[in-house]
Amino acid sequence: MKNFVFHNPTKIIFGKDTITSIGSETAAYGKKALMVYGRESIKKNNIYDQVTEALREAGITIIEHGGVQSNPVLSHVHQGIKLAKENRVDTIVAVGGGSVLDSAKAISAGALVDHDVWKFFIGKKSIKDALPLTCVLTLAASGSEMNSGMVVTNEETEQKFGFANRHLYPKVSILDPCATFTVPPHYTAYGAVDAIAHVLEYYFTNREPYTPVQDHFMEGIVISCMDSCDRVLQNLEDYDARADLMWAATLALNGLSGAGLGKTGFPMHMIEHSLSALYNIAHGAGLSIVMPGWMIYQAQRTPEKFAQFAERVFNITSGDIEEKAAEGIQALLSWFVKIKTPTNLTALHIPIQDIPKIAENAVALAKIWNMKDYTAEKIEEILKLCV
Amino acid sequence: MKNFVFHNPTKIIFGKDTITSIGSETAAYGKKALMVYGRESIKKNNIYDQVTEALREAGITIIEHGGVQSNPVLSHVHQGIKLAKENRVDTIVAVGGGSVLDSAKAISAGALVDHDVWKFFIGKKSIKDALPLTCVLTLAASGSEMNSGMVVTNEETEQKFGFANRHLYPKVSILDPCATFTVPPHYTAYGAVDAIAHVLEYYFTNREPYTPVQDHFMEGIVISCMDSCDRVLQNLEDYDARADLMWAATLALNGLSGAGLGKTGFPMHMIEHSLSALYNIAHGAGLSIVMPGWMIYQAQRTPEKFAQFAERVFNITSGDIEEKAAEGIQALLSWFVKIKTPTNLTALHIPIQDIPKIAENAVALAKIWNMKDYTAEKIEEILKLCV
Repeated sequence: MKNFVFHNPTKIIFGKDTITSIGSETAAYGKKALMVYGRESIKKNNIYDQVTEALREAGITIIEHGGVQSNPVLSHVHQGIKLAKENRVDTIVAVGGGSVLDSAKAISAGALVDHDVWKFFIGKKSIKDALPLTCVLTLAASGSEMNSGMVVTNEETEQKFGFANRHLYPKVSILDPCATFTVPPHYTAYGAVDAIAHVLEYYFTNREPYTPVQDHFMEGIVISCMDSCDRVLQNLEDYDARADLMWAATLALNGLSGAGLGKTGFPMHMIEHSLSALYNIAHGAGLSIVMPGWMIYQAQRTPEKFAQFAERVFNITSGDIEEKAAEGIQALLSWFVKIKTPTNLTALHIPIQDIPKIAENAVALAKIWNMKDYTAEKIEEILKLCV
Repeated sequence: MKNFVFHNPTKIIFGKDTITSIGSETAAYGKKALMVYGRESIKKNNIYDQVTEALREAGITIIEHGGVQSNPVLSHVHQGIKLAKENRVDTIVAVGGGSVLDSAKAISAGALVDHDVWKFFIGKKSIKDALPLTCVLTLAASGSEMNSGMVVTNEETEQKFGFANRHLYPKVSILDPCATFTVPPHYTAYGAVDAIAHVLEYYFTNREPYTPVQDHFMEGIVISCMDSCDRVLQNLEDYDARADLMWAATLALNGLSGAGLGKTGFPMHMIEHSLSALYNIAHGAGLSIVMPGWMIYQAQRTPEKFAQFAERVFNITSGDIEEKAAEGIQALLSWFVKIKTPTNLTALHIPIQDIPKIAENAVALAKIWNMKDYTAEKIEEILKLCV
């Protein structure tokens, strides 16, 4: 096992009827809050009213910053930073899924500096402080509610970049599974795929020879995500299924998956970020396209780990290592088909002749993420397995 | 899933050559520290020197409080509180295993109040604050390094009581697997049993019908503890094996096992505490005596969960539910025999005619832990299965 530091200070408040605690939890950090949210969905399902009432009852003045879109964009983050500065807010409240959270994180860091917040994303500056962030989560997917990462798209440069910094952990995240009841089936499925991808990035790029604690943890998360997603898709208002999916997705990327593995890569995300930067597709949809192709590519190089995955996650026990590895990938792909996520580029009308352009875009992120073995040629080869 | 709050603020610094960071980490909390440790072992293996030098280099004045014994006693805690008060220390440094940590936690809370610290244990007072605590761990077992619990024995009343309070999380815990190289085989095994017991208390007393996230997490911990303990017993200085065992034991009781399960009990610990209170046996040894008996008793009442345990942890797939349940318990018992932990009362020369006395002692803790269904009769019945 490699050396590591694990320090996740986020307070998770999980369960039914917990949303109104956003008032008292936020009041601990100030009296004026920038409330970041997405589009109309939180107004339709009453979460907007619950949050604003709770904040006002706690004596908090709210500056609203709605309109975050999925694959959140830098220009909207800039507007949020401007609002936060003009109004001298004490704290940020995020109400939404990963896109809202990541926008809120970017605003929380950008509000305390004079330079463009994008400099953090391209490694030209590092975050030294951020406004405190509290959150009401409405989507089980990104894990941003309990980690220090954020991803934002720069529309001008067509770059979807992300990174982590310890100042970006939310202080408090409120996870009420009921807040996800109105997430439609395809977005629920995208969320489950995203959470599974987070785990599998660590699992398959891990170079340590034997890591039983982390492996069993991650295999359990994958099994739980699949199982709970299946149950949600049977009944969108199954509380326990929504709860299991929400908690599994949070645990998938809260630091435990990778603790002790040393340097691992995020190649599937790296490639997917180019898909969503260029074609504005849902992140989970992009991942379900990239994952099978990347896994086929990688399994030719490290089949043992894929065989272990097949055995422990899908109970595939017959065949040699290569056969098991292939069957495990096929089993995951079949599950994607079952939950109706796209599994190849053409399913989302991405032209195959764009592959060189996508690869070129991805290489820029590969450099920033220090994954220099991912050349344009290698990425093209992987993308050709995604058709 | 039941509602829960998860908020574990302990910073874990894990790995080789990390012990000297105790200096800078502790200096963040003050200039004068009470250093709590056990007997001679940390002087023999150089940890004492590493810690004291690092603290002094960080400009910290050390007040020493050594001599903590396993099953740490209240009188020694009282002495530590006296020292902490007299010297007006800013912070506590624990160097040792669970007994040292728990003594240090009791001192950290007791140093800030005028009343007897035991009042916290019997529920007469509640902890409102505590001195900051940093730690260098030398034994993989209790999980105290990343949780808010503590257990202390009152020698006068022959009561071994414990509880949790959010002020008792260590600020920083340094986990260097090398610091456990000198732990002898039988204590290594006791530690693994302790960690497994922590998980199984939640696992088998969980009344929620279906908790895939937690179950897979806990099954993974049990498998990892067994696997890594086996490897350590082959080679006491196998770094990776020591590391896997150390991290698995920490994760076993850091709040994740029980998050979302609602009210669960700790019946095996409750009964074991009486064994170690009355006979001063090692906690892990006591657990390996109590666990099989309690599991046999409980499996007659909730066989389904025991069958799941047998299937997922020991790959026992044939037989009906009752048969699988019994085989799973037998498999764990066989593993205890393999790692040479005692599996019945007579193995530690505890007289069978003492069973009523042990049960009577345990009932006092059952009341405090709010496990009122554990009457003396029921505990006697379980203890009779431990002979």
